[in-house]
Amino acid sequence: MKDKIKQILNQIQDSQISIDEGLQQLEQMYSCDMGYARLDTHRQYRKGFPEAIFCPGKTTDQIVQIAKKLHEVSDQNVLATRAGREVYEAVCREIPSTEFNETSRTIVIRKGVQRSVGNILVVSAGTSDLPVAEEAAVTAEAMGNKVERMYDTGVAGLHRLLSQSERLQQAKVLIVVAGMDGVLPSVVGGLATSPVIAVPTSVGYGANFGGLAPLLTMLNSCSEGIGVVNIDNGFGAGYLASLINQAGI
Amino acid sequence: MKDKIKQILNQIQDSQISIDEGLQQLEQMYSCDMGYARLDTHRQYRKGFPEAIFCPGKTTDQIVQIAKKLHEVSDQNVLATRAGREVYEAVCREIPSTEFNETSRTIVIRKGVQRSVGNILVVSAGTSDLPVAEEAAVTAEAMGNKVERMYDTGVAGLHRLLSQSERLQQAKVLIVVAGMDGVLPSVVGGLATSPVIAVPTSVGYGANFGGLAPLLTMLNSCSEGIGVVNIDNGFGAGYLASLINQAGI
Amino acid sequence: MKDKIKQILNQIQDSQISIDEGLQQLEQMYSCDMGYARLDTHRQYRKGFPEAIFCPGKTTDQIVQIAKKLHEVSDQNVLATRAGREVYEAVCREIPSTEFNETSRTIVIRKGVQRSVGNILVVSAGTSDLPVAEEAAVTAEAMGNKVERMYDTGVAGLHRLLSQSERLQQAKVLIVVAGMDGVLPSVVGGLATSPVIAVPTSVGYGANFGGLAPLLTMLNSCSEGIGVVNIDNGFGAGYLASLINQAGI
Amino acid sequence: MKDKIKQILNQIQDSQISIDEGLQQLEQMYSCDMGYARLDTHRQYRKGFPEAIFCPGKTTDQIVQIAKKLHEVSDQNVLATRAGREVYEAVCREIPSTEFNETSRTIVIRKGVQRSVGNILVVSAGTSDLPVAEEAAVTAEAMGNKVERMYDTGVAGLHRLLSQSERLQQAKVLIVVAGMDGVLPSVVGGLATSPVIAVPTSVGYGANFGGLAPLLTMLNSCSEGIGVVNIDNGFGAGYLASLINQAGI
Amino acid sequence: MKDKIKQILNQIQDSQISIDEGLQQLEQMYSCDMGYARLDTHRQYRKGFPEAIFCPGKTTDQIVQIAKKLHEVSDQNVLATRAGREVYEAVCREIPSTEFNETSRTIVIRKGVQRSVGNILVVSAGTSDLPVAEEAAVTAEAMGNKVERMYDTGVAGLHRLLSQSERLQQAKVLIVVAGMDGVLPSVVGGLATSPVIAVPTSVGYGANFGGLAPLLTMLNSCSEGIGVVNIDNGFGAGYLASLINQAGI
Amino acid sequence: MKDKIKQILNQIQDSQISIDEGLQQLEQMYSCDMGYARLDTHRQYRKGFPEAIFCPGKTTDQIVQIAKKLHEVSDQNVLATRAGREVYEAVCREIPSTEFNETSRTIVIRKGVQRSVGNILVVSAGTSDLPVAEEAAVTAEAMGNKVERMYDTGVAGLHRLLSQSERLQQAKVLIVVAGMDGVLPSVVGGLATSPVIAVPTSVGYGANFGGLAPLLTMLNSCSEGIGVVNIDNGFGAGYLASLINQAGI
Amino acid sequence: MKDKIKQILNQIQDSQISIDEGLQQLEQMYSCDMGYARLDTHRQYRKGFPEAIFCPGKTTDQIVQIAKKLHEVSDQNVLATRAGREVYEAVCREIPSTEFNETSRTIVIRKGVQRSVGNILVVSAGTSDLPVAEEAAVTAEAMGNKVERMYDTGVAGLHRLLSQSERLQQAKVLIVVAGMDGVLPSVVGGLATSPVIAVPTSVGYGANFGGLAPLLTMLNSCSEGIGVVNIDNGFGAGYLASLINQAGI
Amino acid sequence: MKDKIKQILNQIQDSQISIDEGLQQLEQMYSCDMGYARLDTHRQYRKGFPEAIFCPGKTTDQIVQIAKKLHEVSDQNVLATRAGREVYEAVCREIPSTEFNETSRTIVIRKGVQRSVGNILVVSAGTSDLPVAEEAAVTAEAMGNKVERMYDTGVAGLHRLLSQSERLQQAKVLIVVAGMDGVLPSVVGGLATSPVIAVPTSVGYGANFGGLAPLLTMLNSCSEGIGVVNIDNGFGAGYLASLINQAGI
Repeated sequence: MKDKIKQILNQIQDSQISIDEGLQQLEQMYSCDMGYARLDTHRQYRKGFPEAIFCPGKTTDQIVQIAKKLHEVSDQNVLATRAGREVYEAVCREIPSTEFNETSRTIVIRKGVQRSVGNILVVSAGTSDLPVAEEAAVTAEAMGNKVERMYDTGVAGLHRLLSQSERLQQAKVLIVVAGMDGVLPSVVGGLATSPVIAVPTSVGYGANFGGLAPLLTMLNSCSEGIGVVNIDNGFGAGYLASLINQAGI
Repeated sequence: MKDKIKQILNQIQDSQISIDEGLQQLEQMYSCDMGYARLDTHRQYRKGFPEAIFCPGKTTDQIVQIAKKLHEVSDQNVLATRAGREVYEAVCREIPSTEFNETSRTIVIRKGVQRSVGNILVVSAGTSDLPVAEEAAVTAEAMGNKVERMYDTGVAGLHRLLSQSERLQQAKVLIVVAGMDGVLPSVVGGLATSPVIAVPTSVGYGANFGGLAPLLTMLNSCSEGIGVVNIDNGFGAGYLASLINQAGI
Repeated sequence: MKDKIKQILNQIQDSQISIDEGLQQLEQMYSCDMGYARLDTHRQYRKGFPEAIFCPGKTTDQIVQIAKKLHEVSDQNVLATRAGREVYEAVCREIPSTEFNETSRTIVIRKGVQRSVGNILVVSAGTSDLPVAEEAAVTAEAMGNKVERMYDTGVAGLHRLLSQSERLQQAKVLIVVAGMDGVLPSVVGGLATSPVIAVPTSVGYGANFGGLAPLLTMLNSCSEGIGVVNIDNGFGAGYLASLINQAGI
Repeated sequence: MKDKIKQILNQIQDSQISIDEGLQQLEQMYSCDMGYARLDTHRQYRKGFPEAIFCPGKTTDQIVQIAKKLHEVSDQNVLATRAGREVYEAVCREIPSTEFNETSRTIVIRKGVQRSVGNILVVSAGTSDLPVAEEAAVTAEAMGNKVERMYDTGVAGLHRLLSQSERLQQAKVLIVVAGMDGVLPSVVGGLATSPVIAVPTSVGYGANFGGLAPLLTMLNSCSEGIGVVNIDNGFGAGYLASLINQAGI
Repeated sequence: MKDKIKQILNQIQDSQISIDEGLQQLEQMYSCDMGYARLDTHRQYRKGFPEAIFCPGKTTDQIVQIAKKLHEVSDQNVLATRAGREVYEAVCREIPSTEFNETSRTIVIRKGVQRSVGNILVVSAGTSDLPVAEEAAVTAEAMGNKVERMYDTGVAGLHRLLSQSERLQQAKVLIVVAGMDGVLPSVVGGLATSPVIAVPTSVGYGANFGGLAPLLTMLNSCSEGIGVVNIDNGFGAGYLASLINQAGI
Repeated sequence: MKDKIKQILNQIQDSQISIDEGLQQLEQMYSCDMGYARLDTHRQYRKGFPEAIFCPGKTTDQIVQIAKKLHEVSDQNVLATRAGREVYEAVCREIPSTEFNETSRTIVIRKGVQRSVGNILVVSAGTSDLPVAEEAAVTAEAMGNKVERMYDTGVAGLHRLLSQSERLQQAKVLIVVAGMDGVLPSVVGGLATSPVIAVPTSVGYGANFGGLAPLLTMLNSCSEGIGVVNIDNGFGAGYLASLINQAGI
Repeated sequence: MKDKIKQILNQIQDSQISIDEGLQQLEQMYSCDMGYARLDTHRQYRKGFPEAIFCPGKTTDQIVQIAKKLHEVSDQNVLATRAGREVYEAVCREIPSTEFNETSRTIVIRKGVQRSVGNILVVSAGTSDLPVAEEAAVTAEAMGNKVERMYDTGVAGLHRLLSQSERLQQAKVLIVVAGMDGVLPSVVGGLATSPVIAVPTSVGYGANFGGLAPLLTMLNSCSEGIGVVNIDNGFGAGYLASLINQAGI
Repeated sequence: MKDKIKQILNQIQDSQISIDEGLQQLEQMYSCDMGYARLDTHRQYRKGFPEAIFCPGKTTDQIVQIAKKLHEVSDQNVLATRAGREVYEAVCREIPSTEFNETSRTIVIRKGVQRSVGNILVVSAGTSDLPVAEEAAVTAEAMGNKVERMYDTGVAGLHRLLSQSERLQQAKVLIVVAGMDGVLPSVVGGLATSPVIAVPTSVGYGANFGGLAPLLTMLNSCSEGIGVVNIDNGFGAGYLASLINQAGI
């Protein structure tokens, strides 16, 4: 953050920008009031990644304006989650470096050096869990992490998982996504050596109660080293995995 | 049941018992009103095993009287569950062939031919689940089944279970008992070929909510061939296992 | 399973297939990675019936491809549940031996010897419970069991059930399906001698809470010999009934 | 109520009581402030029975004083529920016409003409439900109703209930008390012709959740003509039954 | 019921109907198997009113056929609840004596003597509770009761209720319908002398939880003489009120 | 209220209105029966503001008629909440002084002196909470209060809130609106000196359970001086804030 | 707060205290680290009343030390809630100006000018709600408010409440405490003109679920101007009432 | 693990141990059957720390024997949680290097090199949360991590937390423990840059529902980088923090 401030002051000294422009830029490093939203532009300095855009409840136009502003003030990728294709297309018209992941409904606007460090493994139980698993994977990738995927490895056919146990032990962080009974994180946690982030999904019916069943399973897990995020919160899992994966870097 | 009726009629014919005595015996084959309880003495003919005594909410004296009556009218073992040691001692004073299982707090009054048929395997996740696992095992044994035990095989150390996978595949019925996350039946169900009866226990804390967490896990299991009984209901699991185990016999 | 392996090795020896083809076939006996799914092809050897296709959350094209692959590697019927008519028609275009049950929205692809062994009785409480009851019945039939149906026999008119008590006692396994108050399994369990699989349905309103009410009723049943499956889980009930029905065979 | 007012006015006219005494008596016909309680003395005129004393949370001394006051201002029996034996003994020292029902922990202070009209039948499922069933029966008796009891007739042994179906059809009101699965009111409601008051009890364990399971069963009952009261609320059931039983009288 | 049997036997004796026809008529007095439904035709003899048709989950054609059969075998009105206008029109084409209540979506097919006895008062809290209140009123009217209505009398403006207290005290049975906080039955129960049937509705939002809030309020009511039915169960309330209202008749 | 009564009596004395008209006007000061609704017209005298119209469950025509009647009998603004644009347009055709707030879907019909007293501050956590926050603000404004807004100040970027702490301390009442984790009222309550009304919203997903999570957070707040209203109940918060804000005036 | 700072600086200038002592006093105006607790001594300047001591989970010795420190640094009364008598006696030995309220288990340490301003009315439904009602009353009194009490006025005998309606309308703030069905705040809110703080209590049984029933009733209240606090949170209600009552002062 | 195997083989070669002894030692490296427990002795090789002893449900004698066995086969500290003082004393008699933490009721048996690496910061909201916070801290310390503590920093006095913001930003992992409203992790997560492990505690009353309220708050947190563990699960938090803290080491 000091570098950014120095750079602004240098530009003022060199008369590249006026004092008023410099003042505005300094203020925008903390927050930016857009009327319908007060962007936390300071977040990239504090957390290492700019504020992400959670699309539900915002109009397409609001999302486009927020994306443009974040893209402008940040040196890094900008991420928008739970976006429809029409939102992606609207953003893309304004910022061509925009990518869309159909499965997870995630938008990434590329900027700065694209890194791919460490080793995050995303494991999912069933095919229906893919949207959440992909949201986690895309989030972690957008934050500069190397991400591997191991999908459809539910415990009803345990040999599918056991045959991959080496990969489980090599990951630096594991994200394990499961709906229905939510059993997978307990089994993976018993085999892996690294921290496991458990993500319950709302996939299921009846006494699943919208993901409550796998959430409780994961919170009560007998395996050690498991942290749980909200139901369907792939973004939160990817973010936490990134913080852990880049902790020693 | 026909045999029993014939026998009563023969005794009347041979004047071994009076007509009034015979009538009373015939009536007692259906139910027996003890004032505080109306015993379903017909159950042994209908379900193959006499009514079991659920002790909570009954006085020691009531339990002793019910046990004596059931022992009198039945040709088989009589079972009482959730009994204290003082109840056992009171019953034992009246009926010496009474046995007590301390862990599961179960009383068995031996009578008739003691069989041990088929192959029921009781698997439990942790040491704290033993009382429920033992209630299941004792119930099944009292009903004439051969029972094996495989305890403390939680998935946090999965190799403990995998090293026993042959035994899992040889059982004719499996009872799987687990508290905390309730993950074990899903894993066992993925390895075994026979029906699995899943028993959630109230062992755990916090978001376990008195066994709700493992109950939901088991109801939502992705593995096929699993039936669930009430939380801590070892008796019900043992009873159901007996019906299945003796189905083809 | 040994037979299948022997057969592959023989084909290699006889040069009917190449070593690479044989290797692939051997691998496919365990699992088959289709990108969007990792089929547990080993399941038919382990559980006696191939993996069933749970359609929600899969595209029609994915379901068709999975169905074709399972049909190819399995010697038995293939089952797909919760399928729409358009899915059925798409599968049928590829595999003509496909059948559709409109009420339960179940697809069965016929293959191998069609058996019909034992005696499973499906009892349901009301007309609205038919889709779940039929899912159970069709599943059990697809797995080679003889299935009888006894529908609309709720306890509000108890004589409808009592007049059929002989059939209740002759069944080797009973599946009892009920929504609303979920009372039927308790009453059937009091009359029958064989194991009862209780299936709560989400039929009802108000304090039914999407099937929670009948689920709790069944878990707390005072009648012995009852195992419970998830709300609306006709498939799970049919599968478990099949394992029990064929246990002694 | 008019009679009572007239009587007071007559006593004033005849100088049997002073105007101040008369005023106080008239005020006490509506409510009576005892500091720790504001008795609704008007209730006997409005509802036909004086306010009952719910003992939990009151000191023995407060209960005795309230009982004395209600006994004084009322022409009828006074009822106190959920009372310990020591409370009974304290009341009895002050008012000898006090009776205690040990099972239901109910105190009745006799006064006025003891009636026994109509026909209320209290049916209970198991021995552990007796305290609640007796609270209902004693309440109804104290309010001047004829009460019959039919206990321990759970549906696990349905013939015990069916053999009494004539009594079920002759009752003018039925109170049906059940814990565990709470199935009995649905079955009784299917056989009886009169209104059924269903009382869930907290008897049970595990997924019974303190009586929630039978409460939901009863609220969702498929049988018509059933009204439900709170868990363990024998008093409320007896009260409602009395209002119905005496409606036409 | 004896009259009906006698009449059939007379018709056989007089050769008005054949023995086979008589047998069929006798059987239909108990139940009638229509394939998709097993009508409890005995109910009108047992409960005094024929089985009502709960429309959800039945096709229009099924409803029409069931209505025709019930209308044929019954001497009284036939009732169908939760029906759409198109269902009404389909029934009306077959049976012209059919009426429709738009607010409560109830169908009544008139037959026999139309009675209007006793005095049932239906009280509702808000305008949105009208559909449930009307379902109760129409049900009670169809069963031959005199019904009065007192709508939109919530306690937020208590004077609206107090100004009608005389009507509250004159009713023989009261049905009180309320959503939101469900407070009205407690207040009415404190003013009225007759039994109160409380009906929670699903009207509300937020922590109303689909009617759970008013349901709990009513179950915990401090006023005596209140029985509760399921959320939105106007039919059940009308039925129970009818049984109570006609008890002494 | 006395003024209004005097005015009516004067008009009668002066023969401006007939006695019948005067009587009707006096009656309408208490309640007004419109068939489908019984308006509590006395509320403006009792609570200081006329009854508001909660639109869900009412037809457009009913809303228009109620609005007209309230506008006629009241001296103040009339408020309708949760209204669609088409409802606004229908009301506007009848009463031109009608305004619509699109975000909160609130209708205000202006009448009388428009005040703007005291100082109510509405704080909201996220952009998606705006509809509820605006409902609170518009309600308070319609009731004659001065209202300030401070939106999108969630604690994930705490500096956005801290930079406004002076405004927090100057408000006479604060309304704090938050979904998701519902953390904002606790933080604001720790900084402010005036009463805080906390409004949970249903914004969120997964273990948010429709607003249950923020509701529980707010009820358990460690900060003092917080009162909670129902989930999404912006109207209730604005109303309560108005009563507090105008308490000393 | 400025006065306090000025005073410290004056003492330093006058050499009454050393600079170190002054520094410590200034620091203690913000917080005070006692090892086991970090007192928020700034709270009296921010909220107008010092931090209160919530006793559960603290040792008697810790409570005494915290009480002494708060008493030392504050100019006002110190309050401790949910305290046992032995805690009171221990505090009293150290600070004689300590008072104990047995019913609510509240300790007040008197200091400074004892005010009694405004008009707070505490209304409670039943005798068992007294501890919570008294906690609210004592808290408000300790904070300098005039408090009136109106106890045992449940709606089952509505005339008890209506006869006091004048007092309800004169209060500046009302605290309404109720367990069981929690109906009282809705009724009081319909009669009163001032803000109502509703306090659910855990008094009740069965479907009361530890106070959940009255909590939901109050959150869903149809009467306007009601804010709700946590179950049994008399302290929170008293605190909020004080902020409102003293708002205009 | 290879080192350990090599060492055993060397001892056999050198005849220091017999082949049978060597075999037993090799087997014990995987699991150890003690009858009442099947220790997962392989866990220290797989997860880097031996199995911890969860004391509830085990007898003191069982705990002592398990502790001795784990201490024997492991090179590292052994940890037992939720232990009473009498358990500590019994263990201490057998293994003198045993330590007890009274607040958290944790036993640590020291062995091997005592490390203290990285930087874990444990933050807690209130004094009552100390037992859980200490369980987390002791667990992390026993696993070789440097742990700092920052206690009693709830958001009701936010300046206590803000004054320590530098420490929040310097930690490599943060464990944040809170009961009541569970707000602290959201606020800390908004200020810190490293991963936050949120631990809800069961501290609170009323609508806290045994820790459910803070659990939901934490799962729904708007701040990024937060993983949640079970209610009161200090052990799980300490374990997960250790895995993260030592990830790069």
